[in-house]
Amino acid sequence: MSQLAKRTIMTPGPVEAEPRVLRAMSAPILGQFDPAFTEMMNETMEMLRDLFQTNNQWAFPIDGTSRSGLEAVLTSLIEPGDRVFVPIYGRFGHLLVEICERLDASVHTMECEWGTVFDENDVIQEIKKVKPKIVACVHGETSTGCVMPLQNIGKTCREEDCLFVVDAVATIGGVEFKVDDWFIDAAIGGTQKCLSVPSGMAPITYNSRAEAVIARRKKVERGIATDQDQTTPFSGSVIRSNYFDLSQLQDYWSPRRLNHHTEATSMIYGLHEGLRVLLDEGLENRFERHIFHEQALMAGIKAMGLDLFVEHEHKLPVVTCITVPAGVDADAVRSFMLTHFGVEIASSFGPLHGKIWRIGSMGYSCRKENVLFALSALEAALLYKDVPVHSGKAVQAALAYYESAIVNVPS
Amino acid sequence: MSQLAKRTIMTPGPVEAEPRVLRAMSAPILGQFDPAFTEMMNETMEMLRDLFQTNNQWAFPIDGTSRSGLEAVLTSLIEPGDRVFVPIYGRFGHLLVEICERLDASVHTMECEWGTVFDENDVIQEIKKVKPKIVACVHGETSTGCVMPLQNIGKTCREEDCLFVVDAVATIGGVEFKVDDWFIDAAIGGTQKCLSVPSGMAPITYNSRAEAVIARRKKVERGIATDQDQTTPFSGSVIRSNYFDLSQLQDYWSPRRLNHHTEATSMIYGLHEGLRVLLDEGLENRFERHIFHEQALMAGIKAMGLDLFVEHEHKLPVVTCITVPAGVDADAVRSFMLTHFGVEIASSFGPLHGKIWRIGSMGYSCRKENVLFALSALEAALLYKDVPVHSGKAVQAALAYYESAIVNVPS
Repeated sequence: MSQLAKRTIMTPGPVEAEPRVLRAMSAPILGQFDPAFTEMMNETMEMLRDLFQTNNQWAFPIDGTSRSGLEAVLTSLIEPGDRVFVPIYGRFGHLLVEICERLDASVHTMECEWGTVFDENDVIQEIKKVKPKIVACVHGETSTGCVMPLQNIGKTCREEDCLFVVDAVATIGGVEFKVDDWFIDAAIGGTQKCLSVPSGMAPITYNSRAEAVIARRKKVERGIATDQDQTTPFSGSVIRSNYFDLSQLQDYWSPRRLNHHTEATSMIYGLHEGLRVLLDEGLENRFERHIFHEQALMAGIKAMGLDLFVEHEHKLPVVTCITVPAGVDADAVRSFMLTHFGVEIASSFGPLHGKIWRIGSMGYSCRKENVLFALSALEAALLYKDVPVHSGKAVQAALAYYESAIVNVPS
Repeated sequence: MSQLAKRTIMTPGPVEAEPRVLRAMSAPILGQFDPAFTEMMNETMEMLRDLFQTNNQWAFPIDGTSRSGLEAVLTSLIEPGDRVFVPIYGRFGHLLVEICERLDASVHTMECEWGTVFDENDVIQEIKKVKPKIVACVHGETSTGCVMPLQNIGKTCREEDCLFVVDAVATIGGVEFKVDDWFIDAAIGGTQKCLSVPSGMAPITYNSRAEAVIARRKKVERGIATDQDQTTPFSGSVIRSNYFDLSQLQDYWSPRRLNHHTEATSMIYGLHEGLRVLLDEGLENRFERHIFHEQALMAGIKAMGLDLFVEHEHKLPVVTCITVPAGVDADAVRSFMLTHFGVEIASSFGPLHGKIWRIGSMGYSCRKENVLFALSALEAALLYKDVPVHSGKAVQAALAYYESAIVNVPS
């Protein structure tokens, strides 16, 4: 049965799930209002606050894949005509624009070449000029392997009285990301990357500044409202989606437990267990582990004689992009690796498709044997296809790095 | 650990998951473009066609809970100002209205008392009068325990050139539902009810008439479009959601495999296995099994001296509603059953909260021991709270029904 295929997954997601998470997901179902389940929901919220490094009251998952979290936050915040500013440095900046445009926002963008990021000050100057209601930005761009410095943008957003929304889908749980310290008003994470929980949930958090915007648009659902409930928005325009209406989702995740959707039971089991695994390891240890294995991976790639597509200080530690040598069929190499080694690496999108390979080293997939497997399989595929690389060097370079490392990081 | 609580779940969902489904969900992750996974996606589509009894090309799940499927279909079909007609006979008719109104549809409704359904001919006359672009209707209302006859409405919709959209969340896989024979243009099912797969996916199907509406609004996502792709809609208005854009989801589920979200791997494993279990049993056998156990359950309830809230020919076989006797605290009885027996039954919503109990008998939960457990626990709770019921009669009546049954239905 195809389902039993066992892969070494070194893509930017979905990555291998934590074994403890998969076991947790096979537990029997609990009803959504069963105290045993609502307790688990509350524990999940508490652990999400730790993950996001925030004291926000609201931290819960949207039932859908990562982009459902982006859409829930933006749909609940944006009213038609609102000015939104999006700095774009890869595919997922374009996704933010696409979502905002569908909400009839007035979207202002700036773009830089894929593989680079903006100077934070340029973004700050543009915010002051554009004066948007919302700044929406990607923290880590898996499409290019870059991470955008965000430490100072949020402060400007407070001064300019706009909301700072950050897509941390690729970085949460793998790369330092501080919601409160960085003055981020709403953030969206992903499960299937550095958390190593299967795709299907999108953890989000937002603070009281964002909540105030949502509260103006609050209405209680038809068919379950009581005489005391508003069934028309308080003063804002109606949120265009019922599924993504954060004012209703809040009521569901609060002690009132006002029915909305039926919570995705097994996915909550998985997220809950994934967060326990993560907090057992510790956030700082986890960030260090990701950088540790990234170094081994890069050492191996360079020893093979390949060029890194991104090697500057804003390289995303959890995604390493390799420039495909001229004349090489990038997809054929990936297919060879999957067929013969069961090792999966990724291509990229749009202008970079076929131009770079992307190797993810995220969460449970970010461990020594996976780095060594990926290097072995890539070298073998290239040699098999007569691409000139330095035979036998890559794995040795990675091993040498691991042997010499003073840092004692869990493998 | 709370997660290990093992319940007998006799609510209208989420119900107990099939053990084979839970095992399948603990399988290791596969990449979303891994041939081993795309083969499973294709098999899932094929089995969904059998489930919906359709030859439609498009039959795939939305990654979200049941209402995400409703919203995906309605968001992709409805343009602002479109006239939509919704006959309401319970809470979930109101939900359809709510979703349509948020899409700025011009919504026309008719309502009947909760616990009853419409005469099909009345609905047909109203369609001819209102001349909507879309008729949206719930097949089985879990909030009241009724099932609406739909056999003839779709034919009228064809004649009137409008689209017939049906919410079959509660009935799919448990009650006869024929997409093609009933001329249904788009249908939405649920996983956590009669399919006995955990909540978190919403299988949908739609035909070429619906596809034609969606095709006019098609645009390829920013950041992955090639020179050949449309990035503005062909002739219709832009679909307001990226996450729920069926024109993009089609491309993802088609051989082109154009990237959209990251498919929810473990949920697909669960749905795939749940559909295999269902087709192994056979749709007709499954429908008969649900009626078989419903009869035993009703016999027990009546023997106890309780009144059924719905007992007419349009009773939903998978949800049995009981009128709460005067003066009884309905929630306290449910809480007693959960605490002492681990048996969960449901309350209802809005005007019926506290007035009825709802007992679900769906999918894997629909089996002999669960019916007997539910009757035992309900009787014990009522006796403990000094509610006068006929002591010792309920389980005996159900057993007598099971013993006398000529039909040989798998327990």
